Amino acid sequence: MAFRKFLPLFDRVLVEKFVAETVTKGGIMLPEKSQGKVLQATVVAVGPGSVNQKGALQPVSVKVGEKVLLPEYGGTKVILDDKDYFLFRDADILGKYVE
Amino acid sequence: MAFRKFLPLFDRVLVEKFVAETVTKGGIMLPEKSQGKVLQATVVAVGPGSVNQKGALQPVSVKVGEKVLLPEYGGTKVILDDKDYFLFRDADILGKYVE
Amino acid sequence: MAFRKFLPLFDRVLVEKFVAETVTKGGIMLPEKSQGKVLQATVVAVGPGSVNQKGALQPVSVKVGEKVLLPEYGGTKVILDDKDYFLFRDADILGKYVE
Amino acid sequence: MAFRKFLPLFDRVLVEKFVAETVTKGGIMLPEKSQGKVLQATVVAVGPGSVNQKGALQPVSVKVGEKVLLPEYGGTKVILDDKDYFLFRDADILGKYVE
Amino acid sequence: MAFRKFLPLFDRVLVEKFVAETVTKGGIMLPEKSQGKVLQATVVAVGPGSVNQKGALQPVSVKVGEKVLLPEYGGTKVILDDKDYFLFRDADILGKYVE
Amino acid sequence: MAFRKFLPLFDRVLVEKFVAETVTKGGIMLPEKSQGKVLQATVVAVGPGSVNQKGALQPVSVKVGEKVLLPEYGGTKVILDDKDYFLFRDADILGKYVE
Amino acid sequence: MAFRKFLPLFDRVLVEKFVAETVTKGGIMLPEKSQGKVLQATVVAVGPGSVNQKGALQPVSVKVGEKVLLPEYGGTKVILDDKDYFLFRDADILGKYVE
Repeated sequence: MAFRKFLPLFDRVLVEKFVAETVTKGGIMLPEKSQGKVLQATVVAVGPGSVNQKGALQPVSVKVGEKVLLPEYGGTKVILDDKDYFLFRDADILGKYVE
Repeated sequence: MAFRKFLPLFDRVLVEKFVAETVTKGGIMLPEKSQGKVLQATVVAVGPGSVNQKGALQPVSVKVGEKVLLPEYGGTKVILDDKDYFLFRDADILGKYVE
Repeated sequence: MAFRKFLPLFDRVLVEKFVAETVTKGGIMLPEKSQGKVLQATVVAVGPGSVNQKGALQPVSVKVGEKVLLPEYGGTKVILDDKDYFLFRDADILGKYVE
Repeated sequence: MAFRKFLPLFDRVLVEKFVAETVTKGGIMLPEKSQGKVLQATVVAVGPGSVNQKGALQPVSVKVGEKVLLPEYGGTKVILDDKDYFLFRDADILGKYVE
Repeated sequence: MAFRKFLPLFDRVLVEKFVAETVTKGGIMLPEKSQGKVLQATVVAVGPGSVNQKGALQPVSVKVGEKVLLPEYGGTKVILDDKDYFLFRDADILGKYVE
Repeated sequence: MAFRKFLPLFDRVLVEKFVAETVTKGGIMLPEKSQGKVLQATVVAVGPGSVNQKGALQPVSVKVGEKVLLPEYGGTKVILDDKDYFLFRDADILGKYVE
Repeated sequence: MAFRKFLPLFDRVLVEKFVAETVTKGGIMLPEKSQGKVLQATVVAVGPGSVNQKGALQPVSVKVGEKVLLPEYGGTKVILDDKDYFLFRDADILGKYVE
């Protein structure tokens, strides 16, 4: 997979957004413009972390495979093996879903 | 409940706003536009805290279940299980109500 | 009283402004627009202080009951028990009146 | 005197500007608009100083009674006992006159 | 080669962008305007790193020869021996491709 | 002299600009608008220095009597004993002329 | 020479730009507007370095006599003995040419 070969630098986190659901719970098909922004994603690669003022490495707060909630704006779209991914700074990820 | 499964990152605090009271103390029904902004909320989840310049974790200053006063602007609306919540930075919460 | 139940967070200070005097020293009633801004207030609640870069708590510089001089702009109006109060950052309070 | 009862907070310095001289050295009366800005003042009260990043108090660099040179802009006018004073941050005072 | 003789200062990284592919996987020639921005590059020289607040040198996070992903904007074009190179700050490089 | 009685605060440096030369090397009188800005000055008083984040005093880098090169913009004009001087921050002085 | 008598302050570096080449490799004379910006320079004097937050001197990263690459914008033109020089902050110099 693409994310195995790409290593984000510093505190960057590479995520893959969930596929937008185009069918509502009630079974109705949604036209594309009604589907809204997809803000949930899976972490596919993480950077080593950022270096603080004392020179120590501060690891990122999410792990590969975790489900996260993204902010509505921000992030950098990157294309790896013809597939869309997004890079976010660790500190910009709002939270994660825990089982 | 939704907030059990969602963990805010860093110093973020997930709150649920109080239901707007639509009846005054005197018993008069208020039309929606008179109800004003709801700035009181209950903390439903808290992040682990932020990391200071020395690399130490600084816990957030509120706890799950506490009643807080929110600033009029700011915060990020998040929808969890079809219910509205808001994420605020710990430092942006104005104060809390203590018994 | 309201301020007993409300605890400001961090270095915030809850103040109650003095009642505007509507009678001059000479005994003349002042119309409201001549009364000017009330910049003097009594401290009714203080936060625990802010945390500095070393992780130590820096207490606020005023105490409950002290009379302070507020800056002309700034502060956040909060309503507690139907009464107006203002929240100021400790560092924004200009000075205090000592006996 | 007013300044005995007012204590500036942090690194604020309370000054009283010199009375503008309305007569030139040559004895000619100056109309008010020719008198220019009064930038010299006497220190009447000083705050305890500011707290640095290590939590230590950094005292202000001027003392009560010293004559100082103020910057042309800045400062906060405060009225104490119906008399005009100005509050300046210690770091904004340009210099002092020494005997 | 040019990059042997040029040493970036501080945390700057000298990169050479990949040659834009003008033929698609399917073998179709692309007109120049369809080729998009080239964001992949090879590191050809690195600075010694930046000095942190404690005076210690923080080496850059990439090495000569590594393949990196550049941000869409930023970087400084430099011409060495009539060939185009780009200087990026280490922290602005998004990630690297690992085998 | 004026500067004996005036002590700049913090890292401020009081300088006196050189008298503008109104005659060129070739002996031609210059009209005033051709004379350009005078950027060379003599240091006449220096502040004690600024206090760094550790609370230690950092002395200024120039001494009384030294000839310095000033930036084209910046500095605060001060009038002492009817004579023009300028206050510059130590860090804004470009360099000094050494014998 | 001029630069012997001028000492830049802090982390400033005094450079002399290379003379613009007005003849191309092929021997064709270039009109002045085609010659482009001269971004290569020789270091003629360096400041003692800047003082970091711990009060320690951080020397500049270039030495007198080294050939450097300048950024396209920035720098302060200074005239010493009727000759043009430029002052750059050490951190703004892009890199140096090593043999």
